[in-house]
Amino acid sequence: MITLYELAGRDPELRFSPYCWRIRMALAHKGLDATTIPWRFSEVASLPGAPANRKVPVLTDGAKVVADSVEIALYLEDRYGNGPSLFGGPGGEAHVHFILAWADSILIPAMAPIVAPSVLPLLRPEDQIYFRASREARFGITFEQLAQERGARLPALRKLLAPLRLTLARQPFLGGGEPSYADYGVFGCFQWARCVGAPAPLEPGDKITCWLTEMLNLFDGFAARAKIEEPALLD
Amino acid sequence: MITLYELAGRDPELRFSPYCWRIRMALAHKGLDATTIPWRFSEVASLPGAPANRKVPVLTDGAKVVADSVEIALYLEDRYGNGPSLFGGPGGEAHVHFILAWADSILIPAMAPIVAPSVLPLLRPEDQIYFRASREARFGITFEQLAQERGARLPALRKLLAPLRLTLARQPFLGGGEPSYADYGVFGCFQWARCVGAPAPLEPGDKITCWLTEMLNLFDGFAARAKIEEPALLD
Repeated sequence: MITLYELAGRDPELRFSPYCWRIRMALAHKGLDATTIPWRFSEVASLPGAPANRKVPVLTDGAKVVADSVEIALYLEDRYGNGPSLFGGPGGEAHVHFILAWADSILIPAMAPIVAPSVLPLLRPEDQIYFRASREARFGITFEQLAQERGARLPALRKLLAPLRLTLARQPFLGGGEPSYADYGVFGCFQWARCVGAPAPLEPGDKITCWLTEMLNLFDGFAARAKIEEPALLD
Repeated sequence: MITLYELAGRDPELRFSPYCWRIRMALAHKGLDATTIPWRFSEVASLPGAPANRKVPVLTDGAKVVADSVEIALYLEDRYGNGPSLFGGPGGEAHVHFILAWADSILIPAMAPIVAPSVLPLLRPEDQIYFRASREARFGITFEQLAQERGARLPALRKLLAPLRLTLARQPFLGGGEPSYADYGVFGCFQWARCVGAPAPLEPGDKITCWLTEMLNLFDGFAARAKIEEPALLD
């Protein structure tokens, strides 16, 4: 039996972590059922494999414990090799790591200051304390400033999506004709913003929107049906 | 017989185009010999397939004419399937397109204003006229301003290399254990800067340097032996 520990808001149904969404989609891709357990920032000690494992996603499969989204994806690909491939073979896997590195080092840092102000009010009070302190230290400004500035950050975010836009002008998915873990790696970031009601990263008419709609509709609308918050009224 | 038309400087041995270097490396990867023909910006009408083909690289293989670096790479992979794979199978190929899109839409535009001032004096006088006019229109500033500002552009360039740095911390090449066309796609950009003597994109100690050295040493030092210009004294 597979269990996935996922970041949750005050509402335990609100699951918004971009890294956890990668695994939700990977499990759906493989056709695997999983029990999902809501986890909050203040529950560090409760994770399987703690104290080494301090962050979600963490996946357990029987006695096996795997932490870190990409390690979980590689585990699923290896263990459930009969299901549809997440990586498209060794050549696919090697190149997917660059796309994940781009999402992690460019896309998420550009989106985080835009998304974080929407996340804060959705957390439990004790988690808000941690989240505010850690994010204000990371960004170097207060949440109030973040919320004020985030509209101004959108044009730069839209510009750095150029490689995604260019690739999707050539093929329907990053994985080619079918979605791969690279698609889930990038989609997780958009779903993060969407679930918490952050300002839309895409302008109307952006070609990326077609891909995003396809991603939301995969697996009978699995991601489209997720619990989402209405856009906050901060802007 | 394979013939490759390549951008050249006043010195016909100076071959510096990032797109042409992708194909030089791809041919070496496949173990294919090619006759290379120097071509300059002002020789538009002389290319095989002109006027439809107005830019290099253009490759001819017997009666076949292929233009555009990625189309040439796909042609070589298909036609010379017995040689080492450039893409690592269909799954590899699909994901390589994102890496090329990143190089084309992010890396080259960030490097071009740094590299162009080194390119200009290496061209024939008639090509300098075209290059100055087209690049000043593209960048919106004069070459004299470009040369003055390029040092200030290096920190941003180094920062946007983060996905490359992160991937190479995990594996020796973008292709995994062995170089793929994705490596050649990105390496071509570094070789462009190196051949014309532009300021080094990497700081000493940058982990990307190890990969770059490996790339220069591939195929018995094929890229390391290329004709290069000494750094210009503009800075």
